[in-house]
Amino acid sequence: MSDTVPRPTLEAVAARAGVSRATVSRVVNGGDGVREPLVERVRQAVEELGYVPNQAARSLVTKRHDAVAVVIAEPETRVFADPFFALQLRGISKELTAHDNQLVLLLTEGRDDHTRVARYLAGGHVDGALVFSLHVDDPLPELIQGAGVPTVFGGRPGWGDGTRDVVYVDSDNRGGARAAVRHLVGLGRTRVAHITGPLDQTSAADRLQGYRDVMGDADPRLVVESDFTPGGGERAMRELLDRCPEVDAVFAANDLTASGVLRVLRERGRRVPEDVAVVGFDDMVPVAEQSDPPLTTVRQDIEEMGRIMTRLLLRSLDRRNTGGAAPDPVRPAPSGEVLPTTLVRRASA
Amino acid sequence: MSDTVPRPTLEAVAARAGVSRATVSRVVNGGDGVREPLVERVRQAVEELGYVPNQAARSLVTKRHDAVAVVIAEPETRVFADPFFALQLRGISKELTAHDNQLVLLLTEGRDDHTRVARYLAGGHVDGALVFSLHVDDPLPELIQGAGVPTVFGGRPGWGDGTRDVVYVDSDNRGGARAAVRHLVGLGRTRVAHITGPLDQTSAADRLQGYRDVMGDADPRLVVESDFTPGGGERAMRELLDRCPEVDAVFAANDLTASGVLRVLRERGRRVPEDVAVVGFDDMVPVAEQSDPPLTTVRQDIEEMGRIMTRLLLRSLDRRNTGGAAPDPVRPAPSGEVLPTTLVRRASA
Repeated sequence: MSDTVPRPTLEAVAARAGVSRATVSRVVNGGDGVREPLVERVRQAVEELGYVPNQAARSLVTKRHDAVAVVIAEPETRVFADPFFALQLRGISKELTAHDNQLVLLLTEGRDDHTRVARYLAGGHVDGALVFSLHVDDPLPELIQGAGVPTVFGGRPGWGDGTRDVVYVDSDNRGGARAAVRHLVGLGRTRVAHITGPLDQTSAADRLQGYRDVMGDADPRLVVESDFTPGGGERAMRELLDRCPEVDAVFAANDLTASGVLRVLRERGRRVPEDVAVVGFDDMVPVAEQSDPPLTTVRQDIEEMGRIMTRLLLRSLDRRNTGGAAPDPVRPAPSGEVLPTTLVRRASA
Repeated sequence: MSDTVPRPTLEAVAARAGVSRATVSRVVNGGDGVREPLVERVRQAVEELGYVPNQAARSLVTKRHDAVAVVIAEPETRVFADPFFALQLRGISKELTAHDNQLVLLLTEGRDDHTRVARYLAGGHVDGALVFSLHVDDPLPELIQGAGVPTVFGGRPGWGDGTRDVVYVDSDNRGGARAAVRHLVGLGRTRVAHITGPLDQTSAADRLQGYRDVMGDADPRLVVESDFTPGGGERAMRELLDRCPEVDAVFAANDLTASGVLRVLRERGRRVPEDVAVVGFDDMVPVAEQSDPPLTTVRQDIEEMGRIMTRLLLRSLDRRNTGGAAPDPVRPAPSGEVLPTTLVRRASA
């Protein structure tokens, strides 16, 4: 255990800088109303002594911890296996760092740990939370609301009637899916299949809805449920070829699923796109560009989603902190922000 | 913003369970001295009301937050690109979850953010910290000691004279490197090169030392410094082939580096292992097994390292909490635990 060296105090900094305790405190908390030469002397003393302000004391003044939690409602292993989360975290990390806020990622092994996460959120360790990857029957949103922490959700939450006062950022999953399927139909394909994501997530349900907007629900053999993973994509594609060998196009619910689909088609000797055209979703660049053949897909700006969520949260925390602006009587606060998606054509369709 | 529903209070739970406030408090904080039927009634009321104990109040009693920070002194992008960290986090996450402790991963964009990390650690949000991937001149250890948080380091810290009272868990990097190089020499190779990691990290410096234990420092052209990444491995291998085309074996400082080495050898038409034998380090299973040819490497148990670090930290926190056992007068507390490494033979050497 690193021995706990006594921490330099505010008093020690004041003595070293030759100023009052109050001046040090003001500088440490932002420097308002302190003359520049004094600020400089205090900063130097802070540096020389290696003084770390006590956040608990500091937050008594500012009522802020300058820390935001990120909660991904998936087991820790999936968080690191799926580049989707890395991209979202990249956007969040950049945005929080730009505002000198600490990113606090709360990892779990599974749903049994969600009560503990809520306890941490309720404990006054963060100013707000960004919450991802919720499944319809997940108790986490209730727990988080119980914890009383301002929250922005990633993806449209699937519970209730949608009128609850939640803020979320989402991509246009349904519109993107329609564009993908219309593209396949435009290529003259008549047996267009869809391999879905987990249908208890709104992103997967919305993409299925977009597929149905174009295809109706004529041939139920052409829709196979899967789980957003390459292995799941392989299994679903095998099942699809067994059920309906004449399939000539596949819209896969994400790029990882599409990578599994391409592997099975290669293994079965079907040419892409000549025999079967394939479209993915996400435009996860290393996956989509390096796949064989390179993948036509629906692009969503995952990193930007993370940034926008963060901005919405920080803005709302600022409003709270400045006493809270009166609610605008004309326009209610928007409950969701939906980012556009675009079809990116490569070789697979 | 999710509207902050009023949080159910301790009083509400007491009323629902028909017991006193004090009884609820005792049950919530571990249930000591409360009869089982009462415990049951309180638990039921807690569940029905969705009561989340106030961690701040709770920790006034237990002096614990049941939360441990993990700090990786690398930019967020590297944390997600290098499977090494995912494996370590897996071990930590499993162990913390088994003890109902929350894993709090503090991500940063770079060194400029380390002061903020130290501020968060000093703010009383976690009981202790696990700290990884320190570079020799990194100010983070000082900052963390200033924050006064019990800490276990991953990897032998490179600063000072090594006698400072720090606890760390490491792998036998030097012994593993010796085994790798002896294996290459045993195959009859005479031009055995080493592509190192970043030499401001002890793991890389120790592996170089192990190489020198066997090879001496006869031919300085055979040692090329690199950075533990596939791209770095490619660049270093090109340089090595330019400097010393007659090279017949490469010990790469980790498996990711080795993957870059194999790519360049293939590109240059050198057969592995016939023309050049290659050994890696880590035994990062998907990388090492799926490389072409499968990689001979030095195995370290990365996940187990994470687990052991966590156990050491939790044990030390328990000692603190129970008032601290008197220090053993005969045997001082060990400052480091070093795990064995083993050579795993596959096709590349």
